[in-house]
Amino acid sequence: MSDVLDLTRELISRKSVTPDDAGCQPLVAARLEAAGFAVEPMRFGQVDNLWATHGQGAPVLALLGHTDVVPSGPSEAWTSDPFAPEIRDGVLYGRGAADMKSGVAAFVVAAERFVAAHPGHAGTLALLLTSDEEGDAIDGVRRVAATFAERGTRIDWCITGEPSSTRTLGDLLRVGRRGSLSATLTVRGVQGHVAYPDKARNPIHDLAPALAELVARHWDAGYESFPPTSLQVSNIAAGTGATNVIPGTATVQFNLRYTPHWDAPALEAEIGALLDRHGLDYTIAWHRSGEPFYTPEGPLRAAAREVMSRFAGAAPEESTGGGTSDARFIAPLGAQCIEIGPVNASIHQIDEHVRVADLEALPQLYLQLLERLLPDAKSAG
Amino acid sequence: MSDVLDLTRELISRKSVTPDDAGCQPLVAARLEAAGFAVEPMRFGQVDNLWATHGQGAPVLALLGHTDVVPSGPSEAWTSDPFAPEIRDGVLYGRGAADMKSGVAAFVVAAERFVAAHPGHAGTLALLLTSDEEGDAIDGVRRVAATFAERGTRIDWCITGEPSSTRTLGDLLRVGRRGSLSATLTVRGVQGHVAYPDKARNPIHDLAPALAELVARHWDAGYESFPPTSLQVSNIAAGTGATNVIPGTATVQFNLRYTPHWDAPALEAEIGALLDRHGLDYTIAWHRSGEPFYTPEGPLRAAAREVMSRFAGAAPEESTGGGTSDARFIAPLGAQCIEIGPVNASIHQIDEHVRVADLEALPQLYLQLLERLLPDAKSAG
Repeated sequence: MSDVLDLTRELISRKSVTPDDAGCQPLVAARLEAAGFAVEPMRFGQVDNLWATHGQGAPVLALLGHTDVVPSGPSEAWTSDPFAPEIRDGVLYGRGAADMKSGVAAFVVAAERFVAAHPGHAGTLALLLTSDEEGDAIDGVRRVAATFAERGTRIDWCITGEPSSTRTLGDLLRVGRRGSLSATLTVRGVQGHVAYPDKARNPIHDLAPALAELVARHWDAGYESFPPTSLQVSNIAAGTGATNVIPGTATVQFNLRYTPHWDAPALEAEIGALLDRHGLDYTIAWHRSGEPFYTPEGPLRAAAREVMSRFAGAAPEESTGGGTSDARFIAPLGAQCIEIGPVNASIHQIDEHVRVADLEALPQLYLQLLERLLPDAKSAG
Repeated sequence: MSDVLDLTRELISRKSVTPDDAGCQPLVAARLEAAGFAVEPMRFGQVDNLWATHGQGAPVLALLGHTDVVPSGPSEAWTSDPFAPEIRDGVLYGRGAADMKSGVAAFVVAAERFVAAHPGHAGTLALLLTSDEEGDAIDGVRRVAATFAERGTRIDWCITGEPSSTRTLGDLLRVGRRGSLSATLTVRGVQGHVAYPDKARNPIHDLAPALAELVARHWDAGYESFPPTSLQVSNIAAGTGATNVIPGTATVQFNLRYTPHWDAPALEAEIGALLDRHGLDYTIAWHRSGEPFYTPEGPLRAAAREVMSRFAGAAPEESTGGGTSDARFIAPLGAQCIEIGPVNASIHQIDEHVRVADLEALPQLYLQLLERLLPDAKSAG
């Protein structure tokens, strides 16, 4: 058994369904402490967070990950117990095998090897883990970042170990994320009988032209490598079930994924103005999931591209697509953020897995990045 | 106790929740047979219908009613047992007191008195009752009318005894009904994640502009005393509940109440063309509840207006508003239809009731109508 495989298996066997860390972070903390890291557990509410650093001063390079996993679903649907890691035909199965206990284990092994080989490296190598990335994400990295902002803890570069690869380890480099903004819109009318429309006001009828304008709206044409800003309605509901009743309210839920052309306040103002123009009697509840961020060309992207090319056999796609990650909370601290991790095809699914060969390669990939970004003080001078 | 009050109480005490006649029609049949009517029970499926005639040839004047009632709801919410009629302060309470066992009883009493006083009246006096007006209305008057059309049974004038009065007995004469057409529209898209709109097709987005056009459409400006044709959406539903999923389908239910400018096939064609223009991938299920009908000025309306003015103290409002009734099935036979009945304020409600004074007057009102419309042969000659 290799070091990274052993550690991944140990982490998978700890049933850390979000937001329960289930002892993963103490295991990591003990190893990093033994390797010479300064370790700071940061527990907020029910959530464990771990901040570990080695070296000092700028640049500060943080490796960002999470120890929590999504629920397994019915374990009898799995070929083997989701929390009893098992290798079959060169593939390691278990909940978190891809998202992202393999990434966390690879971070730890890479960090240990790095500080052992380069005790006098430039700047600071940091590891930040949370047990609430898959859940509400309130008391996790959001809260840690707020604490860092208060106390002036600076991060220059952040590498998230989320499973970002699509087919081959290292084939995709995430260099930004769209923002995400959700809304629940409730339009009020006056309930009545369909035979007497004059005595009612149909909120679906009030809503329809506003909704048509909202979904037809062109927000932007994209930004750098970002796809265009998109609004998608996820749910719409109105009606009593009876076919002869005009309902009293209509409710619509929608989400925007948006480029750095926008921020949440600007979008909220635009949409509010549109609804006002249509004269709707409405309330709207906004949920801001995270502003967009973008890491432009520079040393971080250049280093990642070069190292990944070596592992994937070709230059990675440099993407800003996909869902959210905790990098959304670190970017506003002024950090450049990228995401590099294993293949994501099986995440959140039954029989989640990672190829053992990819897992073995991953610490090496991170190690080469660390060596590029935090060179030995003497060679850097 | 008067005859009409006695009969109304007997009918209310028979628990004829739709479509169960519970012995109401046999009671009526026995009385009409004794009065010299030819009686024809017409049972279809679970539904009892009764056709009784006196005299022969044209004009055929049919009194149309139903013996079924809507459920009482929780009987403990009633001041007295809904199926144990009780008079309090000059008001008779019970399920069906207004809709429409009082009307049926008044029909019977008026018919008895009429044929006793005018054995040689002109034309044919008929009574048509069903036990399925409040329910599906499939095996009730719809089926009877189809039978009449097949066998050539003709009806010239039809007086429905539904509770049509609003404040005072006889203050409203219904001279037509709008048509009613319902639809369930399902728009198909492709389910996906809100973060990847390119891999999905949002059926709510496809639907929105079509819905906006549909609800904004001006259908007509009304017809004679009909209010304008109106389309109302009653229910709309799409979404998995999750806020990050683009749903695969969206469903809309709507109803049209329409004037004689339209019929169901024309409306279905118009709406189908609108949906096609928007390029929707859809299915639509239509339910035709009844075409509109209208009784223009003529001897029937003139007689009704004159008689009702005497009872209400003023000329009645002549209206085409309100919901559907079984007259929708009789009108297509070529019959002119009007509706005259007691005050409708309490129908389908807890503590349904009719004023005893109105109940006592009702047979007299119908009797005067019969005398005007089916005069004695000698005086008519």
